[in-house]
Amino acid sequence: MDDRTPGPAGEQVGKGRVEALSDGVFAIVVTLLVLEIKVPHVQAHDSIASLGHALLALAPKFVSWVISFVTVCVIWLNHHRLFTLIGRLDNGLFWRNANLLLWTSFIPFPTALMGDYPGNRLAVSFYGLVMCLMALGFVALRWHMHRHPDLIQQGVDRGAFRSGTRSSILLGPVAYASGAILAWLSTPAAFICFAAIAASFVRPREPGTRRAAGA
Amino acid sequence: MDDRTPGPAGEQVGKGRVEALSDGVFAIVVTLLVLEIKVPHVQAHDSIASLGHALLALAPKFVSWVISFVTVCVIWLNHHRLFTLIGRLDNGLFWRNANLLLWTSFIPFPTALMGDYPGNRLAVSFYGLVMCLMALGFVALRWHMHRHPDLIQQGVDRGAFRSGTRSSILLGPVAYASGAILAWLSTPAAFICFAAIAASFVRPREPGTRRAAGA
Amino acid sequence: MDDRTPGPAGEQVGKGRVEALSDGVFAIVVTLLVLEIKVPHVQAHDSIASLGHALLALAPKFVSWVISFVTVCVIWLNHHRLFTLIGRLDNGLFWRNANLLLWTSFIPFPTALMGDYPGNRLAVSFYGLVMCLMALGFVALRWHMHRHPDLIQQGVDRGAFRSGTRSSILLGPVAYASGAILAWLSTPAAFICFAAIAASFVRPREPGTRRAAGA
Amino acid sequence: MDDRTPGPAGEQVGKGRVEALSDGVFAIVVTLLVLEIKVPHVQAHDSIASLGHALLALAPKFVSWVISFVTVCVIWLNHHRLFTLIGRLDNGLFWRNANLLLWTSFIPFPTALMGDYPGNRLAVSFYGLVMCLMALGFVALRWHMHRHPDLIQQGVDRGAFRSGTRSSILLGPVAYASGAILAWLSTPAAFICFAAIAASFVRPREPGTRRAAGA
Repeated sequence: MDDRTPGPAGEQVGKGRVEALSDGVFAIVVTLLVLEIKVPHVQAHDSIASLGHALLALAPKFVSWVISFVTVCVIWLNHHRLFTLIGRLDNGLFWRNANLLLWTSFIPFPTALMGDYPGNRLAVSFYGLVMCLMALGFVALRWHMHRHPDLIQQGVDRGAFRSGTRSSILLGPVAYASGAILAWLSTPAAFICFAAIAASFVRPREPGTRRAAGA
Repeated sequence: MDDRTPGPAGEQVGKGRVEALSDGVFAIVVTLLVLEIKVPHVQAHDSIASLGHALLALAPKFVSWVISFVTVCVIWLNHHRLFTLIGRLDNGLFWRNANLLLWTSFIPFPTALMGDYPGNRLAVSFYGLVMCLMALGFVALRWHMHRHPDLIQQGVDRGAFRSGTRSSILLGPVAYASGAILAWLSTPAAFICFAAIAASFVRPREPGTRRAAGA
Repeated sequence: MDDRTPGPAGEQVGKGRVEALSDGVFAIVVTLLVLEIKVPHVQAHDSIASLGHALLALAPKFVSWVISFVTVCVIWLNHHRLFTLIGRLDNGLFWRNANLLLWTSFIPFPTALMGDYPGNRLAVSFYGLVMCLMALGFVALRWHMHRHPDLIQQGVDRGAFRSGTRSSILLGPVAYASGAILAWLSTPAAFICFAAIAASFVRPREPGTRRAAGA
Repeated sequence: MDDRTPGPAGEQVGKGRVEALSDGVFAIVVTLLVLEIKVPHVQAHDSIASLGHALLALAPKFVSWVISFVTVCVIWLNHHRLFTLIGRLDNGLFWRNANLLLWTSFIPFPTALMGDYPGNRLAVSFYGLVMCLMALGFVALRWHMHRHPDLIQQGVDRGAFRSGTRSSILLGPVAYASGAILAWLSTPAAFICFAAIAASFVRPREPGTRRAAGA
C-alpha cells in the first residue's frame, strides 16, 4: 500500500485534489444530514391530526438539521477562503485538513443526537463539543501555515493572516465551548447560541467596505 | 473558524467551486432518493405471490421516487442555465444558493413521506409546500441578480432576464402552491399535478425555434 | 424555477457538467451498494460460530453486491466511451441520459432484493428486468445520436457507430431479458448469467489488436 | 450497453475521469463511515447518566470509525501518489483500480462489524482480512504497471518504482494479515495493530530529507 516513489515533478500532495476531496466530503455531509430525519410511523394512515402531531414532534430534528446545514456551509466557505491563501500543501497540512474533515463528517451524529434528545443537557453539550473540535481543526490548519510561511501563497498580507489566525482562535472554538457550557444551564439557550454562531457568518459583507474598516 | 484575510486576488467566492458544491449536492440527492424505498419483509421467502403483493404495495413509493428524480434533474438543469448567466458570486448569492441547496437536500424526506402516506392530504400537501419553498429559492437567486446587475455575466440580454425572472415567479412557486392546495381536495390530482410540473420541463425544445417564439 | 433566458453563448446544456453529474451518480451508487448489507445481529456477542454462521448467511448479499459493483463499473466505462463520441448535448440527449441515471441509481434496490430473496424467482427476475431497462437507456442514447448526427463528435467513424448501436441493442437488453426469463427456470442460473454479462466486459482488450479484428 | 466504436482520439480510458471516479468513491466512503454509528435509544429522555452510559458503550464504534477514517485517507494519499506515476490507463489498469475501489467501498461493513463485536475474534480478524485484500489491490496495480512499463509516466525513476513495488508487497498486505492473525490471540492487540498501520503513514515527512535517506 506504500507509495514513496518520487513522481516526475517531485510533487507532495496536489492542492486541487485535496480541495476536490474536501468539497466532496462537505457536499455529502450537507446532503446526508436529512437522512437522520426518519419518516414518522402513524397507525391511522389517512389521519391528518396524527401525522400533523408526529411531524410537529420532529420540530427539534428540523431545527438541528437547519443549524448543522448552515454550519457546514460556513465550514465550506471558510475552507474555500483559507485554501485561496495556501500556495502548496505539505504532509502536515494534508493531515490537519483530514482532521477537519473527520470532525465535519462526524456532524450528522451529534445533529441527530441533539435532535432526538433536545432537552438532554449532555446531548446538546456534546454537539457544542464536536463543533469546538471542528473549529480547533481550522486553528490547527492556520497555526501550521503560520509556522511554515513557505506554504502560504505569495502576495498574501502576513499581518492580516496573523490577525485572522488570532480571531480564528477566539471566535470558533471559544464560541462553541461557551455553547457547550451554556447547555448545562439551559438547552434552549445553547440551541440559540449554536444558531447565532452560524448566523453570524451569513450576514452580507460588501466587497471592500467592511473589510477595509475591519481588517 | 473565521477567515477574513484577503486573498491575493481579493476574490469573494469562486463560482466554479460553488457550482461543484451544488452539483455534488444534486448528484447525491438524486441517488439517495432510492434509499427511502426499503426492501419489503416477506415471511414465505420463496413465495412469488407474497413478494409480488409486497412490491405492488410499494407502488406509491416508486411513483414519488420518479417524480422527485425528474424534479431534481429539472432543478439541476435550471441551476446550470442560471449559473451561465452569473458573472461573479457575492455573499448574498452564495447564501441564496445555499438556501436552494437546503430545500433540494430536504427532498428525500417529503418524497418518503408522500410515498408512505399517499392518501394522507397533509403528507401530499407537505410535498408541494417543500417544492414551493425550493422554487422560491430560484426566485430569490434571480431577484438578487436583478437588484445587483453587476453580478450578471456581460452580454446577457437584460430584457430576457427580466421576463425570465417574472415567469420564474409565476411558474415554479405558484404551480407547486396550487398542487399543495389541490392535495386537500384530491391526493391523486396533486400527484398528477407534481408529475405534470416536472414533465413540463422535459419536453424537447429545439435550439432557437421555440425560444425565438417564446421568450 | 424556470430559466429560459438565453446565455451569452446560447449554450444548451454543458457536456462537461452533465458528465460530472453522471460521474457523481455512478460514484455514489457504487459506494451505496454496500450499505444494503447490514451487520448481522447475534445474541452471543463473542461467539465465533454464531457470527460465522450469520456472515455465511449473508453470502447471497455479497454475491449480489459484487455483481452490481462490476455492472456499475461497466456502465461507467460504457458511458465514458459513449460521451467521447458526443460533440454537444441537446435537450433530448440530456433527458435520455437522465433516464439512464434513473435506472442506474435504482440498482441498490433490486440488488438488495435479490440478496435478501436469492431463491425467489420474482426477485431475481426483477433484477434482470431493471438491468434490461438500464441497458435500453444506452440504446435510447445511441438511437437519438443516430437520428441527430450533428450531435456526434467530428471525426467519429459513422459505420463503426452504426454497428456499435446495433450490437448495443443485441447485447445489453437481450442478455438481461434472457437472464430475467432464465430466473423462472433456475435462480442460480440467472445469477451466473448476470455475473457473466458483467464479466464479459472486464476481459482485457489490447489497444488496436482486437478492435481491428472485431469492429 | 456495449460501446466499442473508436473515439476520435482512439483514447482507451481517460485518466482524469478515473481519478475523479476514485476520488468520488473515497470521499463518499470516508463520509458514510459515520452513518454506521446509530444514535442510542434511551428510555429516560432527559437522563444524563443513561445517555452518558449509552454513549460510552459506543466507544468501540468510535475507535473503529477513527481507524477506518484515517485508513481511507491513507488510501486516498497512496492512490493520489500512484496516479502521478501513471502516464495512461489501459483496460487492465482500469479493472485493477475498480478492484481497489471495491474493497475500499466495502470498508463501512467490516468497520461496523468490528465496532459492534469488538471482542469477537472473527469480527476483528475479518476487518484485517478485508484491509489485506484492499492492500493487495495496490500491489496488483503496481504489478500491472511493472509488467507494462509503457503505462508509466515518462521521467519516473524505474529503480525507485521497483523498490516501491517491493515494499508495497511487504508493508500493506503482510501488516494487515499479521493483524488478522493477531486478532485470534488478542482483539485489543489487533485494534492497536490496525491503528498503528494507519498511523505509520501519518507521520510528517519533510520534502527531500527523509526521502533522500530512505528511497
